[in-house]
Amino acid sequence: MIEDKNQERTSLEKLGEFGLIDHLTKDFSIQHESTLTGIGDDAAVLDFKDKKTVLSTDLLIEGVHFDLSYMPLKHLGYKAVIVNLSDIYAMNATATHITVSIAVSNRFPLEAIEELYAGIALACTKFKVDLIGGDTTSSTTGLLISITAIGAANETNIAYRKGAKPNDLLVVSGDLGGAYMGLQVLEREKEVFKVNPNSQPDLEPYSYVIERQLKPEARNDISGLLQEMGVQPTSMIDISDGLSSEILHLCKNSEVGCNLFEDKIPLDPTVISACEEFNIDSTMVALSGGEDYELLFTVAQADFEKIKGNPNLSIIGHMTQASEGAHLITRGDTKIPLTAQGWNSFKA
Amino acid sequence: MIEDKNQERTSLEKLGEFGLIDHLTKDFSIQHESTLTGIGDDAAVLDFKDKKTVLSTDLLIEGVHFDLSYMPLKHLGYKAVIVNLSDIYAMNATATHITVSIAVSNRFPLEAIEELYAGIALACTKFKVDLIGGDTTSSTTGLLISITAIGAANETNIAYRKGAKPNDLLVVSGDLGGAYMGLQVLEREKEVFKVNPNSQPDLEPYSYVIERQLKPEARNDISGLLQEMGVQPTSMIDISDGLSSEILHLCKNSEVGCNLFEDKIPLDPTVISACEEFNIDSTMVALSGGEDYELLFTVAQADFEKIKGNPNLSIIGHMTQASEGAHLITRGDTKIPLTAQGWNSFKA
Repeated sequence: MIEDKNQERTSLEKLGEFGLIDHLTKDFSIQHESTLTGIGDDAAVLDFKDKKTVLSTDLLIEGVHFDLSYMPLKHLGYKAVIVNLSDIYAMNATATHITVSIAVSNRFPLEAIEELYAGIALACTKFKVDLIGGDTTSSTTGLLISITAIGAANETNIAYRKGAKPNDLLVVSGDLGGAYMGLQVLEREKEVFKVNPNSQPDLEPYSYVIERQLKPEARNDISGLLQEMGVQPTSMIDISDGLSSEILHLCKNSEVGCNLFEDKIPLDPTVISACEEFNIDSTMVALSGGEDYELLFTVAQADFEKIKGNPNLSIIGHMTQASEGAHLITRGDTKIPLTAQGWNSFKA
Repeated sequence: MIEDKNQERTSLEKLGEFGLIDHLTKDFSIQHESTLTGIGDDAAVLDFKDKKTVLSTDLLIEGVHFDLSYMPLKHLGYKAVIVNLSDIYAMNATATHITVSIAVSNRFPLEAIEELYAGIALACTKFKVDLIGGDTTSSTTGLLISITAIGAANETNIAYRKGAKPNDLLVVSGDLGGAYMGLQVLEREKEVFKVNPNSQPDLEPYSYVIERQLKPEARNDISGLLQEMGVQPTSMIDISDGLSSEILHLCKNSEVGCNLFEDKIPLDPTVISACEEFNIDSTMVALSGGEDYELLFTVAQADFEKIKGNPNLSIIGHMTQASEGAHLITRGDTKIPLTAQGWNSFKA
């Protein structure tokens, strides 16, 4: 962050814990009829009527999951919400509520936390979810964000990881690899900045991939799109760790195999050109890059006509018997076993 | 912690993130019919039928909320769950599910995290809640636990902070101040240990207060007890920050005042004797000590006969018009304004 020594700074200590929560959440409005009580009691109270409750939680830690030297706090708040909503959408459900807990060291002034909450508020408004609770406390070092996302779905619409059958089509929304290449560009600029703090990089050619990294969107449109088409996905997962890792999750949970076709993997032209510039194989980036928050799902062969040609969706392969394993079929028609290169935060 | 240099230690890096979650959660069983899907998909799926969903979340941070030099990891896991369940019970609801996220630095071997989860499992079994999700990641320093507790209640049974009326009776479960005095004893022993690591303190006389600090229980019995009595509390809160702070929350949210009678505050004899030894006023300890996780609630005057004489409950005051303010009526019949000494984690 570029530090402005002259800006007004309010210390968190002065506000205290209750004051801070009140201050940060006063502008959040309740949009859902299902929110009987939001912030301000021991617990929130929700009414999902005859729908099922869907719930997921995530932890984001400074120095592990994000780097504030190129991640503006507002973007971080936005992305933290998106990452969690994506898990709800990956159940083919509608996200309705979130709780946000933060731990923050005293080095952050109130104004920084306000920026973070501005990003959270933006995501809440855009994705129509109510902030209904949370916790705010100090940390000994750095910033930490814990979000729980809650959603609702009719039982018949819920898509688990376990429902894929052999011969089902494998479908992905949007395009892949952008978030990873955005990270490569930002890491490079950070190194350049260290050597020459006065350099003014032209990041315009990279705006798509940088946005995929700093301000990803979650696919809240896919569930409705599939319903309009009359398609019930047989299994579904979101792509947080890279295509390869997510395919293997579907295969393991559904007890099936998979053939993934390299030439069908959707890539944005700017991702391809960035890969060329960085001398990285674009298929590897899509397979192992992660953080794209697209949805990966399977549908019955019978739904082929409904899916094909939709600009939001790409059919990238099909499921097989478990005994056949999970493979990438390359452009050169070679069969390579898929391996999970999913991210392990415990690796040094 | 006493470190055993010879014990087998498994590094977290070796297991990786998915391996760690699988390993830690494999022995947790699902007890609730409402749990349609627990751990292992993008999100958990719950079915509360015609009941309302109640949800609360908390963040516990090493060096801020707990000190591993006298808090065994198993106790910490247990307490972390209790603290969250208490918020659900404070809505006069039944706790049914939790999610647990942890961030942990590489200095913790797997065996330490297993201890933590053994405590979590014990609380889940004892309080009949299902572990349905969570996140496990590395931290740059120390241990961090984020828990979301979920519960269910009939709408008519839910007790908010806002329902107290003037003349309602103020009631508290159990006794107060124990957890704070337990902390005083443990802090003193830590200082003694620093000077003389071979000292063998006799902590037997302090076992009740130490247990209140290290292994508190949440009052899952009160909701059922009140239903049996035919009593619907008009407002309710749990005592995490001290009686004074919680009374002021009820007053603020219900727009009432309160008279609290010093001679009615329930204190265990060992709390009184520890207060004498440490030369601390026991009323102050009850008012500001916190971490007792008892329930504080109000009932209509008409329920007096049902409540009085119950060994689990003490009538400690009554609500007044808001204009009268909130006061402690001392044994000497002096009226002292109640002030919130609630804990502020941002204070140095």
